[in-house]
Amino acid sequence: MRIAMLAPLAESIPPPLYGGTERAVSVLTEELVSRGHEVTLFASGDSQTRAALVACCPCGLRLDPAVHDQIAYTMTQLGQAYAESSSYDLIHNHLDYFAFPFARLTATPTITTAHGRLDLPEVRRVYGAFPELPLVAISDDQRSWLPEAAWAATIPHGVDTAGYRFQPTPGDYLVFLGRISPEKRPDRAIEIARDAGMRLVIAAKVDPVDRSYYEYAIAPLIRTAPNVEFIGEVNERQKDELLGGAYAYLFPIDWPEPFGLTMIEAMATGTPVIAYRAGSAAEVVRDGVTGFVCDTLHDMIEAVPRVRSLDRHACRAHVERHFSPAAMAAGYERVYAALLRTSERV
Amino acid sequence: MRIAMLAPLAESIPPPLYGGTERAVSVLTEELVSRGHEVTLFASGDSQTRAALVACCPCGLRLDPAVHDQIAYTMTQLGQAYAESSSYDLIHNHLDYFAFPFARLTATPTITTAHGRLDLPEVRRVYGAFPELPLVAISDDQRSWLPEAAWAATIPHGVDTAGYRFQPTPGDYLVFLGRISPEKRPDRAIEIARDAGMRLVIAAKVDPVDRSYYEYAIAPLIRTAPNVEFIGEVNERQKDELLGGAYAYLFPIDWPEPFGLTMIEAMATGTPVIAYRAGSAAEVVRDGVTGFVCDTLHDMIEAVPRVRSLDRHACRAHVERHFSPAAMAAGYERVYAALLRTSERV
Repeated sequence: MRIAMLAPLAESIPPPLYGGTERAVSVLTEELVSRGHEVTLFASGDSQTRAALVACCPCGLRLDPAVHDQIAYTMTQLGQAYAESSSYDLIHNHLDYFAFPFARLTATPTITTAHGRLDLPEVRRVYGAFPELPLVAISDDQRSWLPEAAWAATIPHGVDTAGYRFQPTPGDYLVFLGRISPEKRPDRAIEIARDAGMRLVIAAKVDPVDRSYYEYAIAPLIRTAPNVEFIGEVNERQKDELLGGAYAYLFPIDWPEPFGLTMIEAMATGTPVIAYRAGSAAEVVRDGVTGFVCDTLHDMIEAVPRVRSLDRHACRAHVERHFSPAAMAAGYERVYAALLRTSERV
Repeated sequence: MRIAMLAPLAESIPPPLYGGTERAVSVLTEELVSRGHEVTLFASGDSQTRAALVACCPCGLRLDPAVHDQIAYTMTQLGQAYAESSSYDLIHNHLDYFAFPFARLTATPTITTAHGRLDLPEVRRVYGAFPELPLVAISDDQRSWLPEAAWAATIPHGVDTAGYRFQPTPGDYLVFLGRISPEKRPDRAIEIARDAGMRLVIAAKVDPVDRSYYEYAIAPLIRTAPNVEFIGEVNERQKDELLGGAYAYLFPIDWPEPFGLTMIEAMATGTPVIAYRAGSAAEVVRDGVTGFVCDTLHDMIEAVPRVRSLDRHACRAHVERHFSPAAMAAGYERVYAALLRTSERV
């Protein structure tokens, strides 16, 4: 199949540091190429891929200090991709609603993977304005917030376990990884570590929009907590070591997390996950087997000693079985095929 | 002619308070309707127009506290307008580059009025990616920053002088009007008023992005200056009174101002303009007749007493002659006609 893959330009594909969506797009793209598809990746010019790369900007926009208006790049990307839409069998959109009005104007079908939260009124409004466009959810929970949309499938993200060494022995610290923001609740992670008397490593980016939250809400907690270390963003190698060397991975979210790629990355190294029950957590973690899905902060704290009873091999096996690149690509192949059948009938 | 007019959704058309672009779109739309055109205005639902209104949101987005993502509304607006593009002879775009990729996909021609500054590298990049799309400049200075673009014309904005009472007698204060931001240089206005020993009224909005600039750079100057009053945003009636009752209007800009609608609003009431030479200033103000165009802050200060020698009738007449709704609409009618001739030939 000839597939135009529209990747976010915020990060390169794959990203050097933070970037779950871009990491998932990379895994899917490479796996589709391996399976013989002709994939054209519209992405930042510093992306690494075996697909044909169309460079839509020199490098990932978030880390480029010269970039002030990311959307100007996205509009140019969409202009280019849709102007040559007849060269593709389908367009796979990872740019959220930005592609919707183009999809409606174009004969080549577009399939959109929803990567964001769908519970906000404005999101519901813009998705509702294009109700006929087919979507892929990355968790059933994400999909449940917009049940009336044209869902083609739920396809969880995959990880390439070759990038994550299995570490059979639990370490002596907890990890919080990703992004400092109120909905990710790093404050809960600090409380859990304090109550459990265990060291916590926080590896996370701080976006400009979250700078005040970090400075006023989180930095003071880190300064006064006995055993918390903030190390900023980490690259893939550092993340592999950090996760694999941990006792447990904390995912104390307070929002409808659409997927939570770091949970499967942690489990791929053998490290169990202690997650707050929200968004996709209960779909990604097998409760009592690869971690614990908790209804309260109290339960999360009580889960810490119980992690010792879990089998780290089971965590790795769970990822290999349910979150492999092959499973992800096979899911999309089915969606692509159905999409082409439908669009031929029209 | 059947014209789809794509207005910014940030403000209603016309806007209740701040909003030069939206005010100009309103003047053009109403004048085109008067001249017998079939105009469909894609704008916020609280807009006031004699054109057919397509409501793209309930009310102007900037003043709606429920709105967090203005671009989601813009994409829905573009989706709707371009899906029905065959119902129009042409699409007149006031949404900057957002319409560019749609224009390229659509047989109905799109003409874009550039309302923003064109000197920034990222702006040049996105305009450069769509070099064939015809543009209208709102000043020759604006156009000079991107000389290689497909300029169809320069058409200055118009004002309806019925909304601005001519006041023959100069008042005893200076005015700064618009937006608090580093490029508008309210600090210069405060210096001029202080040196001239004259009262200054600042009527301006403070955008979230300029909140720190206001608090740390401007509010302290206002507190310590003897005769400066900050009154926030004003509506049309208040603006008419404020401008008409003034001795002179200060326009101490430090950026390539694309047009500067407030300069013609001030002159419409009879109030001369003291402008810094930048952007469109020398095209809008007739130096030595309707105000002074100055090369330094020193010259602006020296211009204050010289304003007394100017004829306020000349200011009003200058606006009536060069910046009328009729002149603006006639300019666009010529552009529209040429655009249709070109697109029929293709």
